[in-house]
Amino acid sequence: MLPQIWPAILTLGWILFAIAAGEGAMALFSLATEDGHSTEFGVSAAATALVAGACVLTTRGRQFDLKFRDATLLTVVAWIVVPAFAALPLIAEPVNLSVVDAYFEMVSGITTTGATVMVGLDKVAPSVLLWRSTSQWIGGIGIIGFAIVILPFLKIGGMQLFRLEFTERSEKALPRMRSIATAIVEIYVTLTAACFVVYWLLGMTPFDALNHALTTICTAGFSTHDASFGYFDSPALEWAAVLFMVLGALPFMALLRMMRSGTFKERVDPQVRTYLVVLVILVAVFGVWLLASQELPTARALTKAAFNVVSIATTTGYSSADYALWGTFASVWFFALSFMGGCTGSTAGGIKIFRFKVMYSVVKQHIQRTIYPHAVAPIRYGNQVIPDEQAASVGVFVFLYLAAFSVVAVLMAAFGMGAETSISIAASAIGNIGPGIGDVIGPAGNFSSLPDTAKIVMCLAMIMGRLEILAVLVLFMPSFYR
Amino acid sequence: MLPQIWPAILTLGWILFAIAAGEGAMALFSLATEDGHSTEFGVSAAATALVAGACVLTTRGRQFDLKFRDATLLTVVAWIVVPAFAALPLIAEPVNLSVVDAYFEMVSGITTTGATVMVGLDKVAPSVLLWRSTSQWIGGIGIIGFAIVILPFLKIGGMQLFRLEFTERSEKALPRMRSIATAIVEIYVTLTAACFVVYWLLGMTPFDALNHALTTICTAGFSTHDASFGYFDSPALEWAAVLFMVLGALPFMALLRMMRSGTFKERVDPQVRTYLVVLVILVAVFGVWLLASQELPTARALTKAAFNVVSIATTTGYSSADYALWGTFASVWFFALSFMGGCTGSTAGGIKIFRFKVMYSVVKQHIQRTIYPHAVAPIRYGNQVIPDEQAASVGVFVFLYLAAFSVVAVLMAAFGMGAETSISIAASAIGNIGPGIGDVIGPAGNFSSLPDTAKIVMCLAMIMGRLEILAVLVLFMPSFYR
Repeated sequence: MLPQIWPAILTLGWILFAIAAGEGAMALFSLATEDGHSTEFGVSAAATALVAGACVLTTRGRQFDLKFRDATLLTVVAWIVVPAFAALPLIAEPVNLSVVDAYFEMVSGITTTGATVMVGLDKVAPSVLLWRSTSQWIGGIGIIGFAIVILPFLKIGGMQLFRLEFTERSEKALPRMRSIATAIVEIYVTLTAACFVVYWLLGMTPFDALNHALTTICTAGFSTHDASFGYFDSPALEWAAVLFMVLGALPFMALLRMMRSGTFKERVDPQVRTYLVVLVILVAVFGVWLLASQELPTARALTKAAFNVVSIATTTGYSSADYALWGTFASVWFFALSFMGGCTGSTAGGIKIFRFKVMYSVVKQHIQRTIYPHAVAPIRYGNQVIPDEQAASVGVFVFLYLAAFSVVAVLMAAFGMGAETSISIAASAIGNIGPGIGDVIGPAGNFSSLPDTAKIVMCLAMIMGRLEILAVLVLFMPSFYR
Repeated sequence: MLPQIWPAILTLGWILFAIAAGEGAMALFSLATEDGHSTEFGVSAAATALVAGACVLTTRGRQFDLKFRDATLLTVVAWIVVPAFAALPLIAEPVNLSVVDAYFEMVSGITTTGATVMVGLDKVAPSVLLWRSTSQWIGGIGIIGFAIVILPFLKIGGMQLFRLEFTERSEKALPRMRSIATAIVEIYVTLTAACFVVYWLLGMTPFDALNHALTTICTAGFSTHDASFGYFDSPALEWAAVLFMVLGALPFMALLRMMRSGTFKERVDPQVRTYLVVLVILVAVFGVWLLASQELPTARALTKAAFNVVSIATTTGYSSADYALWGTFASVWFFALSFMGGCTGSTAGGIKIFRFKVMYSVVKQHIQRTIYPHAVAPIRYGNQVIPDEQAASVGVFVFLYLAAFSVVAVLMAAFGMGAETSISIAASAIGNIGPGIGDVIGPAGNFSSLPDTAKIVMCLAMIMGRLEILAVLVLFMPSFYR
């Protein structure tokens, strides 16, 4: 039985309506600020709404329920198609990006990667900047929904660990699912609003504060300035960003439970404490290295270490300094960080910390069994004993993640990129981070100079990374369609 | 109960006697060729024999049997200690290497890596060159023994797949083990002799033919010339080397069975066919790329592609061209190849092809289960169904291999190496290959310029890689000593 395409088309229609509404809002914003982009946003909104309407209307009167395979298909199709419609305003005059560049920018937006091909951001019209930031914010809430609702059913990459308890009792599933979705959106909006207020109070213009709030909470990293956070040159703002980037990289279900119970319990989600401890260690080690090797005042060194390490480790991708200038150790350090990622159920990309926890337990168990073949050594995640099958599915994920990384790196080299740039592009795109290391795509660099072929492969890599690889891979299996 | 140190000391004593005998032979060779190195070889032989004798004598009259933990300890101790004694002749005048350099050279020798700190090989005394080549040849037969006899018992990295059938019936184990060991040594010597004759007939001097035969069969890669195989500039020699490098990277148990039965059966060892097919594809792809991008005559391009790809993919590490000059794609290609490795049960390093086969089956099974949760999809290796536990142990190996790679790469960067050099050193050392990419350690480079700290970390990496990581890691577990 082929997967049904109707549920996918219907849902896609509703998502495209949301995109059209966003574009419409940008047209109004453009009129209000008189930045001269209202026409292309208006036309794009109309075109997108037309397609959205067609999607919804063709499915009228058909009966279907959304099955797991349909959901998989829908997700992949949505992450491929939506950026194309979101890119319409960027293709038109006066922004006038090439089709590939505009699509790249919006894939980078909706996957919350934050790699940009636009140079001279400081002079770009406000409505265009706001649209870029909004695309990331929409992509962020989209991926949280995907991670909480769809992924655990796919048994992908160990995500079955995070299956909500109620999913087995289907009669109560829908209302509870709805209440959770509402609560998550509330948290997302509240955090964004809080971030906006803090940025504003600490000295950003309201417009900058809005844009950066939209791209901080979703750990995405588009900025309104070529120098990113370096433009503000404010330690207070950098520490505020550290706080909100970390919040954005925590599991939203855990945030929800913490807010409801008022306390944090280790048992709720063991990845939270590990993640925070690891972040502190990473910042401390790098801070000490920075103090020892660079001539920086202590406070400044710690700020720079905290901001830039957290930015990469949460897969946000802001920069407040050109870490390429700190030498090779910094480059390799940031490259290594780009594999880590945040917590699952957040907007962060990367391999994600719970998988490292599971792998650590697997390795420990394996060594114990090597020494004492008959020892009973279960694999654990927190207090929970994990079946071998789930541990294996984590292992498969890590393997495929690194395999995808290798393939993209080799392709980038084949397109003529240097070795450092090739591996850095691959890690950054699959991890949904943004900047990388090396001259071309380092924190002071930009993706505009890459050849189109490289940009297209990067788009695929960003989408694969965003959808945890396997969700895309299953579509290439003939048995998926049987 | 602590592991017994006596079996380790006794066996170490016998291995050191072999090293002493080798050094003694070099002293005689030096006398015969009058190259002026007889004194240091003679003195080294005497010193090594003295320690060897002490080891053997202190264990006299003690009763013990070699248990698995003792064997593990022995193996790691042997691979750390033996290079120190083998390095004695290189520390003394007139070779006069620093202690770190000499130890590095011999670790690189005995682990069959082939990275060298010696510059101006063409002018080095014959006895010293022959000793380097001999160290690799000895290390090669050592690792085959380790892989066939010890590793399968450790259940390390999926090696339990290769447990010999008779190992459960202990009364017949020892005689059969002896007959297999004898047969393997016979094959090893026969292949070396054949390689020597072929190299000689195709134009090498007898001395060059001997040295290169010794370092080809063990996929190790020390040469007698700074230009490695490039010195000979002979396509015939390069193709001969391709043949013998591939033979050295095949499982010796499979070679033994093929020689005894006179035919090759897929069933004997599924990794053989896969490995050969993969090599042909890798050579073909790179050959086509070389033809398309470089101005080379077709025959020459194919020869260069075959020789250099096979050299890295078998973890030998000879070079016949400075592939750094072919641009970035070649660099990234050779870097990626350095993770592959040969077949298990051979002298090759790297992750090894059977693990990729198992991981492929695991991924396939996982995707099938994702699509059809109730499908019966066993993990296979060839026709054999593998228990989940063995598949997991392959996954753990791959994870630890890449983790070790990352740690070494970050350390190299901390020691001041460039990013490309750092990651290349890490991959090359853990994979026991030899040359890497970049200016410093590329095929035209040399390891002499590295700081001592980097050389010491590389020594550890080469030994860890050679002993399949886990054999070293278990020694760091407190429970190993309980």
